[in-house]
Amino acid sequence: MTPPARRRAAARAQSAVALGGGHGLHASLQALRRLVADLTVDELAAVVTVADNGGSSGRLRGEFGVLPPGDLRMALAALCGDDAWGDTWARVVQHRFAGDGEMRGHVVGNLLIVALWELLGDHVDALDWMGRLLGASGRVLPMALTPMDITAEVRGADPARPDELSTVRGQVEVATTLGAITSIALDPPEPAACPEAVAAIRASDWVVLGPGSWFSSVIPHLMVPELRSALVETGARVVVVLNLVAEAGETGGFAPEDHLVALWEHAPDLIVHTVLADPRSLPDREGFAAAVASYGARLVVADVAVGDGTPRHDPDKLAEAFRTIVEGD
Amino acid sequence: MTPPARRRAAARAQSAVALGGGHGLHASLQALRRLVADLTVDELAAVVTVADNGGSSGRLRGEFGVLPPGDLRMALAALCGDDAWGDTWARVVQHRFAGDGEMRGHVVGNLLIVALWELLGDHVDALDWMGRLLGASGRVLPMALTPMDITAEVRGADPARPDELSTVRGQVEVATTLGAITSIALDPPEPAACPEAVAAIRASDWVVLGPGSWFSSVIPHLMVPELRSALVETGARVVVVLNLVAEAGETGGFAPEDHLVALWEHAPDLIVHTVLADPRSLPDREGFAAAVASYGARLVVADVAVGDGTPRHDPDKLAEAFRTIVEGD
Repeated sequence: MTPPARRRAAARAQSAVALGGGHGLHASLQALRRLVADLTVDELAAVVTVADNGGSSGRLRGEFGVLPPGDLRMALAALCGDDAWGDTWARVVQHRFAGDGEMRGHVVGNLLIVALWELLGDHVDALDWMGRLLGASGRVLPMALTPMDITAEVRGADPARPDELSTVRGQVEVATTLGAITSIALDPPEPAACPEAVAAIRASDWVVLGPGSWFSSVIPHLMVPELRSALVETGARVVVVLNLVAEAGETGGFAPEDHLVALWEHAPDLIVHTVLADPRSLPDREGFAAAVASYGARLVVADVAVGDGTPRHDPDKLAEAFRTIVEGD
Repeated sequence: MTPPARRRAAARAQSAVALGGGHGLHASLQALRRLVADLTVDELAAVVTVADNGGSSGRLRGEFGVLPPGDLRMALAALCGDDAWGDTWARVVQHRFAGDGEMRGHVVGNLLIVALWELLGDHVDALDWMGRLLGASGRVLPMALTPMDITAEVRGADPARPDELSTVRGQVEVATTLGAITSIALDPPEPAACPEAVAAIRASDWVVLGPGSWFSSVIPHLMVPELRSALVETGARVVVVLNLVAEAGETGGFAPEDHLVALWEHAPDLIVHTVLADPRSLPDREGFAAAVASYGARLVVADVAVGDGTPRHDPDKLAEAFRTIVEGD
């Protein structure tokens, strides 16, 4: 894109799609919601992993054979409206029953989503109704329309045999393996993508990958053939948001560059436009900058963490970084 | 009230409070909602029994120690808005999970109400939020703020000993007893009423009692001291809506007049303004009319049943009957 075209592009509102799952996607959406509020972004969609097999989601998936709703529900809550209505319904949707009875651990929004699926018979229509309930700033879409499992090739899953390769099955099991993940796959291996998710990626100006559990929430999108094609072929600029720390389980010992390499190992043709990282996550900032440049991408280093030392993204700081990226392009 | 004052009263919109529970209250509210829609009624409240001990409500009451939400949820659904929004959320709120797992039999709206109670810590505030979700035409209030049980003195609960008096405990058990109920009581015996329910009854122009399970849904209100005082002392005109048929369990063998007598046995000072009955429920219409007149009340006989022969109230016909009563007064 030539500089004049870029300026024109920056002058109009942009569309954005965020890919991921769990708390990482929640963080990027809470930030992107602020760009919708100030009209920097006029169209926002989330494309969410549907491989969860634990907790309330895993129980509902087992009981009803539905997509695991938890990551979808969390994404919807992240996009809730900024008023008393959005705030209250987001709290309801996120409410987890305590006690010691049969409801213990179930999350209200998960049950609502499953009920809407049963009633309306259409995944996307049901999620759009949830979005309307919450006054959501964007659309939440599943990456596929059938539940799936993640399997991982892991070295040293059994600490007693550190060099042995084995296959670990299930999102929970992958996210908490003690070994080093070398690759992941989906089961079924080539699930059909959600058509609205493919269309959103192809039509978008920006795609945000991460933060989040790298192998169990971010990379799974690259394993859905239609999503991978869309990500490779889209005119959207792809922004990779690095995690603040390597995760003890699936990316223990990973350097920042290893996260990028893992993406390309699963989608060699993916073109990354911008890598966003917090300075505290870059022990060798100059080395990493050189590596990013060698991949043809741009590195943006910005303070995006909450101030209390915990490895969580601050929504306002992350929004400011996104704003700089979108407007500065 | 003098005739000129009556005409003035009829010229302005009226307020109404409906008391009951379960399917009977659902029917009266579906009808009264139509009077809100055409501005005959400008303020509508439901005061709902909270003694259910069965099904999804009973399970939630047992698990969380909360008020049984089911009758409240059904009343809310009856008041849902007439548009796609109200219709969709009412269907969600009324949705009952099937399958054969732990969620089987639970109703989505019951779970939502319990979650709102946990989050907001205020019964009435939470129910008002449910009302806003549904675009409800009125307010739904519990008759009391603590769960309770209904006990009934029953003759011949054991068919082998038809003359023996015994005590049956629990709304489900009372509603399905094989014996003849002679009276009911609440446990705890004098529960504190919901203040907003007392205030609504005292401020209302009309109070509707019934239809519904007479001993387990209608009469319990008369056993809450503050509600009974409010019903006796209010300036509201009390309309008693008779059931279309005697219920096999609790009012088996009851003649229409027996229903009225049962009310006065539990609240001797209650003044009934109008008795509304379907002609098919009056085997001795003239005798019943004379009885109603002897009690100082007015009898309105109107076709209010659905046309298919099942003993269900037709919302439009019941609304028309209410309209005649309110405007004709």
